[in-house]
Amino acid sequence: MQLYSFFNSSTSYRVRIALALKQLPYEYLPVNIREQQHREPGYVAKNPSAGVPLLVDDEGFNLSQSLAIIDYLDIKYPEPRLIPQAPQLRARALEIANLIGCDMHPVNNLKVLRYLVGKLGVSDEQKNAWYAHWIDEGLRSLEALLAQAGSGPFCLGGEVSVADCCLVPQVANALRMGCDISAYERVRAVHEHCNTLPAFQQAAPARQPDFQA
Amino acid sequence: MQLYSFFNSSTSYRVRIALALKQLPYEYLPVNIREQQHREPGYVAKNPSAGVPLLVDDEGFNLSQSLAIIDYLDIKYPEPRLIPQAPQLRARALEIANLIGCDMHPVNNLKVLRYLVGKLGVSDEQKNAWYAHWIDEGLRSLEALLAQAGSGPFCLGGEVSVADCCLVPQVANALRMGCDISAYERVRAVHEHCNTLPAFQQAAPARQPDFQA
Repeated sequence: MQLYSFFNSSTSYRVRIALALKQLPYEYLPVNIREQQHREPGYVAKNPSAGVPLLVDDEGFNLSQSLAIIDYLDIKYPEPRLIPQAPQLRARALEIANLIGCDMHPVNNLKVLRYLVGKLGVSDEQKNAWYAHWIDEGLRSLEALLAQAGSGPFCLGGEVSVADCCLVPQVANALRMGCDISAYERVRAVHEHCNTLPAFQQAAPARQPDFQA
Repeated sequence: MQLYSFFNSSTSYRVRIALALKQLPYEYLPVNIREQQHREPGYVAKNPSAGVPLLVDDEGFNLSQSLAIIDYLDIKYPEPRLIPQAPQLRARALEIANLIGCDMHPVNNLKVLRYLVGKLGVSDEQKNAWYAHWIDEGLRSLEALLAQAGSGPFCLGGEVSVADCCLVPQVANALRMGCDISAYERVRAVHEHCNTLPAFQQAAPARQPDFQA
């Protein structure tokens, strides 16, 4: 398998965690989204979504969208299962993953921040306030969802899931941007626990071949 | 079952389509997000995501996030199946649903537009350009993904899926905002075909009890 990825893309990071948890080997193909490599025609031909990550499996099947990729990997390589099969547990896992994937991440991703600065001329201070606003609103919801989902070291309690694959990169982003997450105890505890595990460590931005400090 | 919904919320609209396709009866509970009813403490206690839609099933299980709700309904009520079981077809359905759910919808939803106007003071013209920019970028990707996914009346070809549940509300939004979608032939054809079907008609904003012109 091949994964087109950018070290600092949190959607790429989600898939790297899933691949590492499943211990699947893959070829890492860097796409520098800061330099707009994801918009180059050769890449867009492979990935009409024009983003990262993109998975190319051993049959040559190309797939974008991190949550679709994790679902696909989970069906082909079910150990460990990241999207539970029990309906209500599964629902909670996807609810948390989608809260992060739909409500939190998209409004703060690189292309949106660039539009704010480049086209709307917002100041650095306004950009940082925008970032912090959506993080704070999202983490408040996430903390409450985690309280509902269970207790234990992971989002759903005792078992790792797609929710953790999404939470860890999102918290990493928030910390990188200097957001105060001290009020979100359960979020912090899950983040800290996951980061003690080799699969999460291996997927971290600083461990990728295209990492730049 | 109960569905907390707002007539004009495209995430609510996705779930209404799924419920209608599955012919599941439910109680419609309006939440006026223009009047911030989704932020009232009584509602947030039920739905920590503080948004619509929220499904409450017959066991009293509360679930937010439209794509998580559709997955849950699909497992409990598999006829017709909206998330295919064949791995690659399933992957394409989720890829399209997530392109719309993560890349297109979130940056243009009501709370984001309100922040742009209320906190960043952007003009109506700038707000409309923002809206059109993300719609255009998203529809370009969507058109290419549809070309890849198959031919036929629906996103995946011959069978309705979660991708159609997402496409129709997104196109409705674009049209409501006056975006030019003439270049996206396959997107338009799927939208038009779906809207000939009773389930899609029944789920439309104008048919909801809380509709306001």
